[in-house]
Amino acid sequence: MSFDVLHRDVLSSDTLRADVLHSDVLRSPVQFLQQAGLLADQDWLREYEAWFEGEGQGISEAVDRAGTPWLRMFDQWGARVDEILYPPEYWRMLKHGYRAGVLWRVFEPKSLLPAYLLLYATGFYDPGLACPYTVSLSTVCPLSKYGDAELKARFLPKMLQRDDSVWQGATWMTEIKGGSDLGAAVETVAQRDGSKWRLNGDKYFASNAGAELAVVAARQEGAPQNVRGLSLYLVPRRADDEHLNYRIRRLKDKIATRSVPTGEIELRQSEGWLLGQAEHGIYLILEVLNLSRVANSVGSVALAQRAIADAYSFAEKRTAFGKPIIEHPLLRRQFGDRLQGLRAASGLAWEAVRLLDKVWQEKPPYSENYHLFRLVAHLAKYWTAEFAVQTAKWAMEVYGGVGTLQEYRVERWLREAMILAIWEGTSHRQMLDGLEVMQRKNAHRLLFQHLAGKAPEAQLREMEARVERQLSLPEVEREETLEKLFGDLASFTADALLREPGR
Amino acid sequence: MSFDVLHRDVLSSDTLRADVLHSDVLRSPVQFLQQAGLLADQDWLREYEAWFEGEGQGISEAVDRAGTPWLRMFDQWGARVDEILYPPEYWRMLKHGYRAGVLWRVFEPKSLLPAYLLLYATGFYDPGLACPYTVSLSTVCPLSKYGDAELKARFLPKMLQRDDSVWQGATWMTEIKGGSDLGAAVETVAQRDGSKWRLNGDKYFASNAGAELAVVAARQEGAPQNVRGLSLYLVPRRADDEHLNYRIRRLKDKIATRSVPTGEIELRQSEGWLLGQAEHGIYLILEVLNLSRVANSVGSVALAQRAIADAYSFAEKRTAFGKPIIEHPLLRRQFGDRLQGLRAASGLAWEAVRLLDKVWQEKPPYSENYHLFRLVAHLAKYWTAEFAVQTAKWAMEVYGGVGTLQEYRVERWLREAMILAIWEGTSHRQMLDGLEVMQRKNAHRLLFQHLAGKAPEAQLREMEARVERQLSLPEVEREETLEKLFGDLASFTADALLREPGR
Amino acid sequence: MSFDVLHRDVLSSDTLRADVLHSDVLRSPVQFLQQAGLLADQDWLREYEAWFEGEGQGISEAVDRAGTPWLRMFDQWGARVDEILYPPEYWRMLKHGYRAGVLWRVFEPKSLLPAYLLLYATGFYDPGLACPYTVSLSTVCPLSKYGDAELKARFLPKMLQRDDSVWQGATWMTEIKGGSDLGAAVETVAQRDGSKWRLNGDKYFASNAGAELAVVAARQEGAPQNVRGLSLYLVPRRADDEHLNYRIRRLKDKIATRSVPTGEIELRQSEGWLLGQAEHGIYLILEVLNLSRVANSVGSVALAQRAIADAYSFAEKRTAFGKPIIEHPLLRRQFGDRLQGLRAASGLAWEAVRLLDKVWQEKPPYSENYHLFRLVAHLAKYWTAEFAVQTAKWAMEVYGGVGTLQEYRVERWLREAMILAIWEGTSHRQMLDGLEVMQRKNAHRLLFQHLAGKAPEAQLREMEARVERQLSLPEVEREETLEKLFGDLASFTADALLREPGR
Amino acid sequence: MSFDVLHRDVLSSDTLRADVLHSDVLRSPVQFLQQAGLLADQDWLREYEAWFEGEGQGISEAVDRAGTPWLRMFDQWGARVDEILYPPEYWRMLKHGYRAGVLWRVFEPKSLLPAYLLLYATGFYDPGLACPYTVSLSTVCPLSKYGDAELKARFLPKMLQRDDSVWQGATWMTEIKGGSDLGAAVETVAQRDGSKWRLNGDKYFASNAGAELAVVAARQEGAPQNVRGLSLYLVPRRADDEHLNYRIRRLKDKIATRSVPTGEIELRQSEGWLLGQAEHGIYLILEVLNLSRVANSVGSVALAQRAIADAYSFAEKRTAFGKPIIEHPLLRRQFGDRLQGLRAASGLAWEAVRLLDKVWQEKPPYSENYHLFRLVAHLAKYWTAEFAVQTAKWAMEVYGGVGTLQEYRVERWLREAMILAIWEGTSHRQMLDGLEVMQRKNAHRLLFQHLAGKAPEAQLREMEARVERQLSLPEVEREETLEKLFGDLASFTADALLREPGR
Repeated sequence: MSFDVLHRDVLSSDTLRADVLHSDVLRSPVQFLQQAGLLADQDWLREYEAWFEGEGQGISEAVDRAGTPWLRMFDQWGARVDEILYPPEYWRMLKHGYRAGVLWRVFEPKSLLPAYLLLYATGFYDPGLACPYTVSLSTVCPLSKYGDAELKARFLPKMLQRDDSVWQGATWMTEIKGGSDLGAAVETVAQRDGSKWRLNGDKYFASNAGAELAVVAARQEGAPQNVRGLSLYLVPRRADDEHLNYRIRRLKDKIATRSVPTGEIELRQSEGWLLGQAEHGIYLILEVLNLSRVANSVGSVALAQRAIADAYSFAEKRTAFGKPIIEHPLLRRQFGDRLQGLRAASGLAWEAVRLLDKVWQEKPPYSENYHLFRLVAHLAKYWTAEFAVQTAKWAMEVYGGVGTLQEYRVERWLREAMILAIWEGTSHRQMLDGLEVMQRKNAHRLLFQHLAGKAPEAQLREMEARVERQLSLPEVEREETLEKLFGDLASFTADALLREPGR
Repeated sequence: MSFDVLHRDVLSSDTLRADVLHSDVLRSPVQFLQQAGLLADQDWLREYEAWFEGEGQGISEAVDRAGTPWLRMFDQWGARVDEILYPPEYWRMLKHGYRAGVLWRVFEPKSLLPAYLLLYATGFYDPGLACPYTVSLSTVCPLSKYGDAELKARFLPKMLQRDDSVWQGATWMTEIKGGSDLGAAVETVAQRDGSKWRLNGDKYFASNAGAELAVVAARQEGAPQNVRGLSLYLVPRRADDEHLNYRIRRLKDKIATRSVPTGEIELRQSEGWLLGQAEHGIYLILEVLNLSRVANSVGSVALAQRAIADAYSFAEKRTAFGKPIIEHPLLRRQFGDRLQGLRAASGLAWEAVRLLDKVWQEKPPYSENYHLFRLVAHLAKYWTAEFAVQTAKWAMEVYGGVGTLQEYRVERWLREAMILAIWEGTSHRQMLDGLEVMQRKNAHRLLFQHLAGKAPEAQLREMEARVERQLSLPEVEREETLEKLFGDLASFTADALLREPGR
Repeated sequence: MSFDVLHRDVLSSDTLRADVLHSDVLRSPVQFLQQAGLLADQDWLREYEAWFEGEGQGISEAVDRAGTPWLRMFDQWGARVDEILYPPEYWRMLKHGYRAGVLWRVFEPKSLLPAYLLLYATGFYDPGLACPYTVSLSTVCPLSKYGDAELKARFLPKMLQRDDSVWQGATWMTEIKGGSDLGAAVETVAQRDGSKWRLNGDKYFASNAGAELAVVAARQEGAPQNVRGLSLYLVPRRADDEHLNYRIRRLKDKIATRSVPTGEIELRQSEGWLLGQAEHGIYLILEVLNLSRVANSVGSVALAQRAIADAYSFAEKRTAFGKPIIEHPLLRRQFGDRLQGLRAASGLAWEAVRLLDKVWQEKPPYSENYHLFRLVAHLAKYWTAEFAVQTAKWAMEVYGGVGTLQEYRVERWLREAMILAIWEGTSHRQMLDGLEVMQRKNAHRLLFQHLAGKAPEAQLREMEARVERQLSLPEVEREETLEKLFGDLASFTADALLREPGR
Repeated sequence: MSFDVLHRDVLSSDTLRADVLHSDVLRSPVQFLQQAGLLADQDWLREYEAWFEGEGQGISEAVDRAGTPWLRMFDQWGARVDEILYPPEYWRMLKHGYRAGVLWRVFEPKSLLPAYLLLYATGFYDPGLACPYTVSLSTVCPLSKYGDAELKARFLPKMLQRDDSVWQGATWMTEIKGGSDLGAAVETVAQRDGSKWRLNGDKYFASNAGAELAVVAARQEGAPQNVRGLSLYLVPRRADDEHLNYRIRRLKDKIATRSVPTGEIELRQSEGWLLGQAEHGIYLILEVLNLSRVANSVGSVALAQRAIADAYSFAEKRTAFGKPIIEHPLLRRQFGDRLQGLRAASGLAWEAVRLLDKVWQEKPPYSENYHLFRLVAHLAKYWTAEFAVQTAKWAMEVYGGVGTLQEYRVERWLREAMILAIWEGTSHRQMLDGLEVMQRKNAHRLLFQHLAGKAPEAQLREMEARVERQLSLPEVEREETLEKLFGDLASFTADALLREPGR
């Protein structure tokens, strides 16, 4: 529960340097990425940002303001259509990212980096919009990796279109009993039907409802009632005969991320195709989660940058006691601390991206790199979301009363950040899954090797000893006291990465 | 920025005792107050709680769901009416607290305690509803204290009615330039008009817009352009001839506290009566703020109790990995920590109430007790609001995905808490004002005397030395590094009060 | 399409008499009923009206303003609950009519009159609220008439409760293919299951979704695919084991009648009990429709009275060219015309009530009285709804610009009236069904007998001849040119009834 | 009150001809205009329609669905900005009509026809959007006609821009006391300030709030308290020093026409320029009204076409009793009647356009043509709006239950039509003003001359005699019985114009 990213000894007064605060870097995701050394000169990303500055931002605000869109279940003559009534400009905004390459750039040559760069820029303007892109990525990746030739021929070209005809993806796992314990909660059943499968069940939190193609967790008839019994299926929106292959029961009224329609999905004899080997389903599901947890980390950092940028813009012009409030020492110090925290969180998130980019094409059994990645991803998901929430809260406080009004944008960041902290697994889940990968795979040792030379040797040793002690505790105590350790490990890792030369 | 109420050495495992967690205390504000020793057997408060359980809670939820009410500025024939179109049951709910005695009980015999007990119970069910009661209290108190016989005869009986004819109060200070630096921001001018005054100006954040009687900060013509130039006026909704004496320009779309209509007020030749001596205005304004900051502290604790209670109810019945999630060690530990934090926050808030109850009838020049109170009030406002925000955030995370849906109540607590953390002064304001009362009035020394015997002597000495060192720093550094000290001082004070025998 | 109720020779200048316009009769449904000779001194109805004036009216406005309520499909732990989130005061308002006796008074002694009196008063304040009462009446009547002893013992006492524990009813016929041609559109199937039946199907316009007991049209397996294949079932909200026996798929966003939740209902192995003989189903369905069409007529008149009353209140106080607009000759004349039309519409609607009260306990085969009733009911449903729509439109025009604002109540009446004109069968349906009962049952001859002595003999003859001519036309032409005749017949009937002594 | 456009002897069965019903003419405003002989081959209008079919229609629906936009009165730093928060695509849609030439085409060469053609096409897709164009036209016309060289140089080029930098106009007359009796209701005062004027007052129904340039009715100090005391001013949104020259107090929640922001405007020392001679103000105001009443007529016809087209699309595919409902004789006949009515209404509206195009550049004293035009304009405004309302109501009934749902578009047309029937003067106003122009200017005689040869001589004579009789009645009776005559005169005129060769 403690959250202390910022009062750390690494904080130096140079975080208050004029060149940071007074430059435009803070207000530009692309310039921020560039300053962080993540990006050479990439015009397409600059154009993407420019589009948001000019047009996309206003659309994003209007979509958030409008709240949950209507779902038109039936047309006026009674045919089931499940049409989501976003304003037309929503679709313009949505298609923009696909055209810019959030999917197709990943495959030429194969690298996730362009996708995550684009997700960062998206997250700065609309954290919810990053979700359709992420789940589309999480659909196209297993398709390209595990799909057989026929499946790929059928679906891959549609998802890699560079124009508005592109198909979207979606990843539907969670059912009404919850998303943490999938082994017990998934009740959707898959029955063989020739080369296809028929799925029956209800998905309770289905992001990007309405997508043309979804990856769906289900249990084959007779498969065990645990996590090993799960397998993963491709389910298109329309069956071969063009009828709706799944139904949207309703859209959910979320507090934020309104740029992604989240719904409840009814699968009723829905046709699907098995991805990979049935008994490997849980691995494929985790690979899907890997992609989205890292996307969540990157998006959390983008959101934090945005909240700081907005707070800064406000504080520059708002005056009290005869000067802009940015010049008040207490607030100025907080800005410095936030910037320092932003760098650390950014370092951690992008380390997760780099590690993922090395391992995302692995299949089980996985290498050590994969286990190292998983631990870093858990640390990053946990830490960056927490940072985003705390930063958004702080930005609202900088605005004071104005921050509590729906009329101005700033309260939105807290709503968005709260969802980032919850979906793809809350902090509990990250901690416990992080614990598991340390216990089972000794991922902490891989981490300390990875950090060698980046943190003072003594500190590395001390941290390692703390982790080993934790792992040797009796189970209940081990979990009960996990939070402090996990937070410190995340902070330690982030600091070490920040110290790395060239960052 | 660090917030670390919970990982403290005072935490002992008894916070996990079954009698706390399994009892109904957590779900009842009255039982919680009773367990905290704050209340003997008071039937009226029990009835008030029972009404909320039976009827009020549903009304409160409907009012929140409905969003900002409409303002009917004109009737259909064109007469200005400024009617706020709440659903009828809002008024039923609102009047309930007045009938139960949030105002009239304060004067028989004179004690603020009944008011704050009722505000606690209110805050548990509807944090925003506590606002009309608080500002009414903040109107009736200066009226009874500073009003002359004529003013009191005119207005006091109306505010102390025990039925639905009761008049509400309101406290309008903030103008468009902001609420922190009132000395510069108040541009409303008061001109003498016989025994009355005529006020002209705009109030930007006016809580309880529509109240029958408001206390309003204004500057007399020719008064200095600083905080000394302010004075305080009583302004009724209707002038002697029954026409509207002020206008509501609009209601503001706040993210929460929808049970209090917050508006922008236009004063145009509005008649008012001066309260107290004109040159003492700032003191009267601060006295008004004292009442509401303490109310905010009490309300923050109530909200935190509510959020924990809701999270507990959820976690008892939600299962994962074969058992209710409340039985998972990591979450169970967090519950224990939250409860411990709740006790500490509660102790701090009610200490502020007790101290206020001793000094609220003082007039300037004030006693040392008053200065001690002010410091504790700043610590309490800061600390309890922060605790409320962090607890509400945590409760959402306990709910997981369900916590992000508008459909279920839990996301509301975070919205409400964010307003508690901002209005009546953000944490910056509390810290800087707390610093001022320490510098000018040595309030910290009064605090350490007050805590003598409640904390170990050595710790008291150490804390005192830290404070003195802070006060001796150069101004910029003193403010820049204030946050850590102020947080620690709040935490230290709360812990000391918790250790006090009989709590 | 022509609508010419008002420029008729029966219009005399006495409709402008001061005693009508200046009295309070126009603003009181009870006084209007009394003046129309429909009601002796009935205190309970007066109390009902008084409650609406004091409390109910404000609730009704708030419910309309709030729009479609939320449907909570699942509780926070994932159990299906299908809870409709109206504000609490909605339930207070709703239960009021049941307590006042809209159901229980019908059975002591047996007479529908009290129910329709109460529906009139309800319709004056909230046309939509009359719907739950009507469909409850349409449930309790067939239950008491066709239910066997066991069914009656099981359900009847619950519907005749005089307190808030009363069960509500509902009548669900319409499916996605439409409500006019039930013979073809009903696809819900009933399968025998011991003494019960299991229903499967979807109802598309289901008024009073959430009711504890519904009458539902379904087709038994193997029954013919036409109107003769329909039968009627009682379906409770909860099955014997308390689980939800039907599901609400969603609530529909109607433009008005927001005081009745209209939804889509999923019947999935829902248990039901057959009412009467299976092969008589269509007769039972028509009997249900009889009750609601007459209720619609009475409600349309009430709405028209209300719209005129509101327009009058406005016009009395709004001035232009130096005097209240009510004193402008053109508008004054329109008021007179409207009042005259109101009387005629009222006479027609209450004649339908009187006739229904004579025949509602008949079972097939029916008497001539029943056929006479059916023709009058079609004329009344058609004519009164049309009058309500035109009157509501006119009232908006009287208000001028103010009439186009959501803020003032008057635009609501047009929205409400449009629904009255559509549900329970549009004007097309009334005309064609009226034509059928004339063709098959010679109901027009019964009507002219009934009107003998109430209209001049020559006019009676002439009208009768016109009807006979119409009936002798070839089918296409008969229907094509029906509208003018049907309108004239309604107008003629209404005028005749108005001339009747004692009205 | 009677409305009987359709059951007329001129109705012939050829209105049911397949070529009308089955062609696409009904669904295309441009093709409809073409078939009516109003338009040669004009590509720009075809492109405009195509844009609406492709993009604009969806935007229009989203804007209607979103309801009244927010008004951001202040930016986050407290500066008054009065920004209307439409979604960005609103502005795209809005600017489209200006680029297409609704203003600039009028001046090359001078003819109003292109403007009204474009207004027709606009009205088919979005009746509210026609309003900004109309009031802009009503601003640019008096500016170009009455502005001196300096004014024209200053403002005219801005309004004739062909790109998105175009300035919009607005016409603000109505104050809180109402719009009919401007002579009494206008309380806005203009005081001379050098070559400018300073205006103070409140406008209550101000269409296109936020426009860059408005024409505003005001009374010069000392001018008489009647209609002769009014004069007309140009008032820009921003004063010379760029500060806001008027304030939007709030936007009004209208039931429709959400594509035009209607607000309340506060004029406070707002700078303005007198147009024409002060004492001619009322003439200029009436000229402004001429433009908008004719626009209203054209828009009403467009709306009626749209409603019929939608009803037709529905009825073609909706089946009952074994066939599409369009094939049911009663409904089929109604379609025929509606089409016939549409032609008549269209003929009347476009006659008003043609007459206006002849006289719009006249200044007082006016020719006989002008008086003829005024009578036709009153007849057209009255008749077409009534036709639009009745047609929209009828279309809802064709849809049946589906017609009462917000989800489908058809209920919108009734909301829109109700506003068309009210603004620019209700039917009362049209009748009484029509009466006046007949009494004072013998405009009826000009009309009958105009219709000579278009209606049978005997009918002409008879109608003329009826009018003369009406005019000779005593005043009260003359007005009291006006409605029937006025309706018949409109119908007669429309029929006569329809008979004219070449139409």
